[in-house]
Amino acid sequence: MSHEFKLTRRIEFAETDMAGIVHFANFYRMMEITEHAFFRSLGLSIHGHDPMSTTGWPRVRASCDFRAPLRFEDEVEIHLLVAEVRTRSIRYVFIFRRADDGTEVARGEVVTVCASVEKTTRKLTAVPIPDAVRAAIEPAPAALLGVSS
Amino acid sequence: MSHEFKLTRRIEFAETDMAGIVHFANFYRMMEITEHAFFRSLGLSIHGHDPMSTTGWPRVRASCDFRAPLRFEDEVEIHLLVAEVRTRSIRYVFIFRRADDGTEVARGEVVTVCASVEKTTRKLTAVPIPDAVRAAIEPAPAALLGVSS
Amino acid sequence: MSHEFKLTRRIEFAETDMAGIVHFANFYRMMEITEHAFFRSLGLSIHGHDPMSTTGWPRVRASCDFRAPLRFEDEVEIHLLVAEVRTRSIRYVFIFRRADDGTEVARGEVVTVCASVEKTTRKLTAVPIPDAVRAAIEPAPAALLGVSS
Amino acid sequence: MSHEFKLTRRIEFAETDMAGIVHFANFYRMMEITEHAFFRSLGLSIHGHDPMSTTGWPRVRASCDFRAPLRFEDEVEIHLLVAEVRTRSIRYVFIFRRADDGTEVARGEVVTVCASVEKTTRKLTAVPIPDAVRAAIEPAPAALLGVSS
Repeated sequence: MSHEFKLTRRIEFAETDMAGIVHFANFYRMMEITEHAFFRSLGLSIHGHDPMSTTGWPRVRASCDFRAPLRFEDEVEIHLLVAEVRTRSIRYVFIFRRADDGTEVARGEVVTVCASVEKTTRKLTAVPIPDAVRAAIEPAPAALLGVSS
Repeated sequence: MSHEFKLTRRIEFAETDMAGIVHFANFYRMMEITEHAFFRSLGLSIHGHDPMSTTGWPRVRASCDFRAPLRFEDEVEIHLLVAEVRTRSIRYVFIFRRADDGTEVARGEVVTVCASVEKTTRKLTAVPIPDAVRAAIEPAPAALLGVSS
Repeated sequence: MSHEFKLTRRIEFAETDMAGIVHFANFYRMMEITEHAFFRSLGLSIHGHDPMSTTGWPRVRASCDFRAPLRFEDEVEIHLLVAEVRTRSIRYVFIFRRADDGTEVARGEVVTVCASVEKTTRKLTAVPIPDAVRAAIEPAPAALLGVSS
Repeated sequence: MSHEFKLTRRIEFAETDMAGIVHFANFYRMMEITEHAFFRSLGLSIHGHDPMSTTGWPRVRASCDFRAPLRFEDEVEIHLLVAEVRTRSIRYVFIFRRADDGTEVARGEVVTVCASVEKTTRKLTAVPIPDAVRAAIEPAPAALLGVSS
């Protein structure tokens, strides 16, 4: 059972904008990259297939607080914490820290629902989280999710 | 004085992902596109220059609730509402509706701060909102910001 | 029969990078946006569905020459010209001009193949261009495709 | 003196589109990521600053041939080869291979010019490649640049 994961990544040029800092929409992409790497680290895939449908994880809600900018070539550590596991959804918290000095630069949250996508109609339906996922993850201790220092 | 703005736009192919729906990070870009079009409609620019510094609007917080997916070639109306104007920051609410039937598909919020970027050091400092901006915008009536039907 | 199409669009903030100009990868997205709007203008869709397969237009080759930068809020006219129609593929030329003074800022080319995507295996196979598409488009006169002034 | 560099990277979900494959514009971003990692590997940065101007590498031309699709979670090796070093510009070739079986999936080329960006006017001017860059890189042997098997 795992409740956290860390990914370190370097900011790419195309992630910056004319203000010289990482465009805020890219923080949501970084949260997703970390979530998917977390799944892979557990031997799971975020995207399942069977002949008639596909399982995916559409987002119900995502938010982020931005405290300091990130710039080109900065190394950032993204710390994923499992905040809540419900029947059909998972809530994650993501803490972005500069890799050099540990400063927290952003903190985000994503609520994602397990959904089946019917192949011909492409209709999305929320479904219970698969047993393989439920067996692999658990909520992080409250202390880890507390207010950052 | 203006407190709202509407933009209609068609979903682009590159905004979709392999799940066949608009990738959630693109909703934050759509909020920004609408904010900038709102500024232009008032004769303002989101990006000012003087010889020593640049004025910009870095984000303090952004969130979005996703209720239904958007797909390639869907037309979406993005309704910006000014929710709050403070000394150095503005809070916007964005309501995404399908253009064909008015269904609300997402609702987001962005808090953005007026900042000066010093050109040589690239340091960001929060500054009071310029008078030209303050003279042009005002908070929307509470009724418009209420829970959607 | 149509052999050309023009789209005018305003550069978005998120399309710029820290150099203050449009990131070059976004020119390829703008070519695609224009191609898709061209199809819509003819009553066609770039993306077809039947119960067992999807038709799409994967790219075989794309190139672009960049002559001058585009910046935030610039208006650009993208002029699509059909350069060649073969059994399974189409070649387009795209000329990017500043909307204010007509200066050519970039010129690109895309070769795209009509392909069927089998739904369960996701295998791509080149197929003949559908009759509806073939009946609607034709190559542009050589003069239009010539060296720009 | 170095004339090549290899980067291995895993395809991200947001790089795919509704066709289930990597959107073609993202190959140009992957070329750039590899170019910048090559510079870092030599102790260089693609982005220099002095009090009055910034040095950058705007693109003159970029092209890519696409031979096979890449999908979510595929590992791809991007092989950069220095094809030509001129007074003010460098030409690179990029070969994309699946990491698992070495299949070539795409081959691109980028011509980039060394430019100075004047800070107040933002004017771009081509300048000679800095000595530190010229001392570190050289063209790859012709055999490496030949037609792939």
